[in-house]
Amino acid sequence: MAPNRSPDRFQQALRQITELLERHRVLEELTHRQQTTKRELLESLTHRQNQGELAHHLRPLHPADLAAVLESLPPAERRLVWSSLGPAQAAAALLELGPAVREALIADTPPAALRALLHEMDPEDLAFVGESLEPEVLAEAYASLDAEALSRARSSAAYPEASVGQMTSPGVALREGSSVAEALDELRRRGELPHQTDSVYVVDARSIVKGVVALQAMVVADPARPLEDLMSPCVVELSPWGPADETVKAFERYDLVSAPVVDDRGKLLGRVTVDAVMDFARRRREVQALQRAGLAGEEDLFAPVLASARNRWLWLGINVLTALVASRVIGMFEKTIDELVALAALLPIVASVGGNTGNQTIALVIRALALDRINTASARRLVVKELGVGVLNGLVWGGLLGLVALVLYRRPALSLVMTAAVLLNLLVAALVGVAVPLGLHHAGRDPAQGASVLLTFTTDSMGFFLFLALAHAFLV
Amino acid sequence: MAPNRSPDRFQQALRQITELLERHRVLEELTHRQQTTKRELLESLTHRQNQGELAHHLRPLHPADLAAVLESLPPAERRLVWSSLGPAQAAAALLELGPAVREALIADTPPAALRALLHEMDPEDLAFVGESLEPEVLAEAYASLDAEALSRARSSAAYPEASVGQMTSPGVALREGSSVAEALDELRRRGELPHQTDSVYVVDARSIVKGVVALQAMVVADPARPLEDLMSPCVVELSPWGPADETVKAFERYDLVSAPVVDDRGKLLGRVTVDAVMDFARRRREVQALQRAGLAGEEDLFAPVLASARNRWLWLGINVLTALVASRVIGMFEKTIDELVALAALLPIVASVGGNTGNQTIALVIRALALDRINTASARRLVVKELGVGVLNGLVWGGLLGLVALVLYRRPALSLVMTAAVLLNLLVAALVGVAVPLGLHHAGRDPAQGASVLLTFTTDSMGFFLFLALAHAFLV
Repeated sequence: MAPNRSPDRFQQALRQITELLERHRVLEELTHRQQTTKRELLESLTHRQNQGELAHHLRPLHPADLAAVLESLPPAERRLVWSSLGPAQAAAALLELGPAVREALIADTPPAALRALLHEMDPEDLAFVGESLEPEVLAEAYASLDAEALSRARSSAAYPEASVGQMTSPGVALREGSSVAEALDELRRRGELPHQTDSVYVVDARSIVKGVVALQAMVVADPARPLEDLMSPCVVELSPWGPADETVKAFERYDLVSAPVVDDRGKLLGRVTVDAVMDFARRRREVQALQRAGLAGEEDLFAPVLASARNRWLWLGINVLTALVASRVIGMFEKTIDELVALAALLPIVASVGGNTGNQTIALVIRALALDRINTASARRLVVKELGVGVLNGLVWGGLLGLVALVLYRRPALSLVMTAAVLLNLLVAALVGVAVPLGLHHAGRDPAQGASVLLTFTTDSMGFFLFLALAHAFLV
Repeated sequence: MAPNRSPDRFQQALRQITELLERHRVLEELTHRQQTTKRELLESLTHRQNQGELAHHLRPLHPADLAAVLESLPPAERRLVWSSLGPAQAAAALLELGPAVREALIADTPPAALRALLHEMDPEDLAFVGESLEPEVLAEAYASLDAEALSRARSSAAYPEASVGQMTSPGVALREGSSVAEALDELRRRGELPHQTDSVYVVDARSIVKGVVALQAMVVADPARPLEDLMSPCVVELSPWGPADETVKAFERYDLVSAPVVDDRGKLLGRVTVDAVMDFARRRREVQALQRAGLAGEEDLFAPVLASARNRWLWLGINVLTALVASRVIGMFEKTIDELVALAALLPIVASVGGNTGNQTIALVIRALALDRINTASARRLVVKELGVGVLNGLVWGGLLGLVALVLYRRPALSLVMTAAVLLNLLVAALVGVAVPLGLHHAGRDPAQGASVLLTFTTDSMGFFLFLALAHAFLV
């Protein structure tokens, strides 16, 4: 462990490793300019020297930091770092990598090294990376497990994607009816407890969960007291088939460190710990942020150009389509524009202001939905309020833009049309801004996904239409 | 505690409470239609009845759920629920509310009730809500604390906004040199341990942290072993003056449940627990999401129209300004448009496709920055890659849009200008999409904040300019 343990020590390690890799690259280039024999000698020398120094810098790194190093390096350097890791370190880092880089590195790993690496994993981790592996490789790894581990791996792999079951790890159960001293003795007999055991579950003869006892309460309690005295009911009990999303909400809301996973009858199956929840939440957020910006999926920073371009085509296509439709609205009024070309310059402003305010409303509604702050009754009030805000902002900013148009073109009628179009488009934005995320949520979809595209399409088309139709009616 | 403990039990409780409030409203309206004497009787009756039933439904709710109920109710109902909470429940809920609703409710609370409520809070919580209180009220609450609590509250309030010090809670320190049995005895003598104690810190005679021992290791270890045998070095040690942001990253990365807070010399000051980190991270994300959409701050769903409108003016103003500048670019080419009005309809497409792909690049760069996946060397490679993607997408989608233009207007030269303008604007988008978030990050600002506005401004203006300048040169 490095002497400096402030959170940014990772940055220092990354800098050292990058320098080392840079030196490696320079040396390699130099040796390639030498004659062959001398070159080979030098090459093997610098290679061995560098690998050793590299391994020295990599050894103290936390698996999460290793993953960060790997993801931030371009392919050639990434492979060099990857190949200097031992099986245990490689296995730990693999679990922390994003799917794109994980799959690329697995494909680069020689079969023997891959086997050694998979051998280091526990059954749940094996199930987790299983989907990135060739079926034969996975089968071989499964074959080396004992019966109990195999059943754990199988059941973990059996739960659907992003379910509670996939995040479940073993928990500690104690039978009801014992004293604190007896319970502590029982724990001591078991030896090591699972990672992050902050509490134990009290179960009856049928393994049904009765409640939870915090380890910190057991430690300070009078040893003669019955264990049930320290027991409190579980704040939540999770089903392994439930969505992992709900778990995130429950952990954030109730400040949990762990929660029991039970079957339909309340039998303890295991537990979910806060680190698994935070990991899941972080990955989920990242993928959602990318998807909202219109990337189909997670993308390796250094993915080949064609793969990267493809990752963006779906939404780019949707964007091209909606932009074309909006542009046809303008096309309908080409004659009007021909008579008053000033309209062409003012058009994008009406659309842009509508899109901007609509996105503000969407952000507010999405936040309220994420926090369960909204229902049918309050949605109605919200629409009324947002329309009120739209009228006010329409008069203020539409009025201002009308003035600007008056200064630029000195036509009072054009100025009034501008103000009216902005005002009306803000009302459209308010309605759509509330309705679209609520509608998507109602349809069981992520309200943030696509809401902005739908809104911008509406405010663009309606902005163009309102402005040009008003201009057509009152100006030309 | 309700019998059903699945995470969505909160939804059921919320439904019941909403129904109750609805009935209350209907009854109130009915009674207002009766004659005065009968009405008064009925009013007090239904009021008392309802308050009782309401309190009954509210009592079993978790403070976080109570906060959710309060935030999702319109002002009148919110006040009714708030007034039926006892001081302890109200104090716990107040800590979970967002700042906007918290301040509104505090302003509504009669002085005596507010005093009773503040009396229920521990020093750190008092410091936390302190900024929402009138100075006299806070001074009075401080006056009722004993010396030790007062110093805890003062020191918590002394740390800057969003610092580690503000999240710090007391930790458990044990002197080095004792056996596991002695350490457990010492803990038992202290009685209750602080909330979420998963581990204790081993300190030397000067209170300097030597390492950490997990409670779960102490429980199962041979009591005769020295405590130091179970000790591991702390993964991170936090400074109370450090930014809370770094803490979030460290907890997510290293799967921590708690981390020690130490002064410059390594003396234990306290610790940060995962629930405080998750709370901070959630609030931070919410505010950032709202700010990115252009709201100045957190906004009560049912805030008055004027306050809500004001909350959106800063960014709306920036948007109006940038839209005006972009529109002047079009204004410069009014003559060109006058000669070929088709340009007006095609213009927004060039701008829109540029904005869309630029935002994809921004999302990728922001994610890489958040995960420490990027540095100067990799930034250069990233620019090259994004330019490559831009060329490819420009040829594909620009080519397609050129074809559409050809079909619509049957002018091959116009079609070529369209393709060239889209291609060039995608290159602008790639450059700006990498440069803007990196520049903001370098300047020590949140790269997500404002990046999109700057990008859209550039791709709009440049899209308009490239398309119209090319049209001016080759078409008219």
